[in-house]
Amino acid sequence: MSHILITGGSGFVGSHICITLLENNYKLVVIDNEANSTSKCLLRIKNFFEDKISQIEKKLIFINSDLRNFYELIEIFETLERKNIRIDFVIHLAGLKDMNKSILRSIEYWDNNVLGSINLFKVMEKFNCRNIVFSSSAAIYDARNTQKFNEDSKKYPLNPYGLTKFTIEKILHNLYEGSSYPWNIINLRYFNPAGAHYSGNFGESPLDKSSNLFPLITKVAVGKLDFIKIFGRDWGTKDGTAERDFVHVTDLAEAHLLAMEYLKNKKKLFISINIGSGQRTSILNLIRTFEKVNKCQIPIKYCDRRKGDVAVLSADIELAKDILKWEPKKTIIDICKDGWNWQSKNPNGY
Amino acid sequence: MSHILITGGSGFVGSHICITLLENNYKLVVIDNEANSTSKCLLRIKNFFEDKISQIEKKLIFINSDLRNFYELIEIFETLERKNIRIDFVIHLAGLKDMNKSILRSIEYWDNNVLGSINLFKVMEKFNCRNIVFSSSAAIYDARNTQKFNEDSKKYPLNPYGLTKFTIEKILHNLYEGSSYPWNIINLRYFNPAGAHYSGNFGESPLDKSSNLFPLITKVAVGKLDFIKIFGRDWGTKDGTAERDFVHVTDLAEAHLLAMEYLKNKKKLFISINIGSGQRTSILNLIRTFEKVNKCQIPIKYCDRRKGDVAVLSADIELAKDILKWEPKKTIIDICKDGWNWQSKNPNGY
Repeated sequence: MSHILITGGSGFVGSHICITLLENNYKLVVIDNEANSTSKCLLRIKNFFEDKISQIEKKLIFINSDLRNFYELIEIFETLERKNIRIDFVIHLAGLKDMNKSILRSIEYWDNNVLGSINLFKVMEKFNCRNIVFSSSAAIYDARNTQKFNEDSKKYPLNPYGLTKFTIEKILHNLYEGSSYPWNIINLRYFNPAGAHYSGNFGESPLDKSSNLFPLITKVAVGKLDFIKIFGRDWGTKDGTAERDFVHVTDLAEAHLLAMEYLKNKKKLFISINIGSGQRTSILNLIRTFEKVNKCQIPIKYCDRRKGDVAVLSADIELAKDILKWEPKKTIIDICKDGWNWQSKNPNGY
Repeated sequence: MSHILITGGSGFVGSHICITLLENNYKLVVIDNEANSTSKCLLRIKNFFEDKISQIEKKLIFINSDLRNFYELIEIFETLERKNIRIDFVIHLAGLKDMNKSILRSIEYWDNNVLGSINLFKVMEKFNCRNIVFSSSAAIYDARNTQKFNEDSKKYPLNPYGLTKFTIEKILHNLYEGSSYPWNIINLRYFNPAGAHYSGNFGESPLDKSSNLFPLITKVAVGKLDFIKIFGRDWGTKDGTAERDFVHVTDLAEAHLLAMEYLKNKKKLFISINIGSGQRTSILNLIRTFEKVNKCQIPIKYCDRRKGDVAVLSADIELAKDILKWEPKKTIIDICKDGWNWQSKNPNGY
């Protein structure tokens, strides 16, 4: 029986990928160390699909493990093999993702992201699994002078988080170029994932104190925070606040499905693809939209710019449209509506 | 008692550093996995110093271990601590170094070089040891258009080996910039280490089939190989063969001593320094010099250029002169003489 391995599969993006793949009849093995997520969300997914998918228990297998433990990873693959479960595809999301923390605690980022990935790729080589979709990031681009990025734009990560993502892309490129056996690799470079599942059952639930904007907005809305900090109102944009490219997590999950299906019949491939909305939305506009859509008040407080921040980050998504036939279906309004639906139903997360 | 840890200390460069540091009254702990070296050379070093250094046994401690094994590394530091041996300085040489092999077997390079370094730095943080001289390489520079490199020259590693060295420099830079405690870091970017100890007792003794030029020349001289391959005679240089910057391994060892002593009283430092001769020597010239100095014949055979090779690589060494007060004392003639002295006395290495 062929399964797809999703590392970091109980996280925000991972859980939505699980849902999308299960809906498309795939069988999954999730490995997650639950450092910043909980496998409770996978239980919810099982409940959600109980009536719709037969034998859901066998189709969504969860293993609490850490990619940094090489021998445990080997053991997992061996155990799966003994149970006749073959991993022939990996969606690799596991990693730390807070850009600001990555500056102060860089070695944790190198350890979790890069060392973990090296272990994973070694095990994949060993078990003859060389198909992978890797969760990369817009943080690898040189955002000092450019505002809209296509995949060939200059790379210059501004923090250790971005540098670890860039390094993992390079490790994969080395494997693609030099390995005796053919690797099929797609790097999906996420812009700003946000929103939640339309059902209100699944969404972002960081254990860690997140510094990502969207969960902070919903926390203010739900009364867990008093106000939202906006860093800089002098960015030279229309309303002065920084502009980002928010992509709905369900659209992002769909991109992984399409990337995986695109890889399936390839002989040898290495490609990097932006996944964003292609739209610029200012921080202030996102907050105002959230207020309007959800009929609530989000007090704001302007602060100084943060080191390493940039005015505008937005995606050129022509390649995703062209190659993956992917297009975002959801809007900023959906992001605000679904995000609030999730947070208001689950004020404490999972 | 304060010791210096030398990772990869039983290798070619490592063993010469051991000699230099012992001569300067330092106490050493060597960690090496003996993947491409043997601790026999450390026994020889002990014999060599037996009459000159009291308690040499306690001053050169060898531990066979692999940096990829994080928990073993922790255990080593703990055991040393219990024995009252404090590591307050690391010279980090452990790693794979064959550029050509790194293309075909890149994951081994990421594993040994980068994963091993991440483990080492984690353990150093844990045991409050934040002084390090790292063995980097000229292979990080963009050699496609430039021929003489200073430390600010454009970086563009042409193979996974160079990329792993560049990545380790970046990890160290992240630690320097973001860690809560101050790191003192010097990256020494080696050009082409060659030669051997003047005594003829210590030299390059790769277990692996090396593709480095100098040990191949001595192998031909000693009759273990029939001829030496020269890759390309159309490089646009004086004699048509590629030009490199050969630095005597004893000079290179001296640079580590000086780098370490330079770091000693610094509060927080990150600096990268070229270590080469500052001279360009063509491959053909090196071979002809070897023949002349050692009165022997080295048959050559011209082959096509290898992928990724470049015409000229040479070091601007002003920074080493300026900061470390280091200067190469040995010449190409010494390299040829000492190299042959070692190889002829030890045709099978250690």
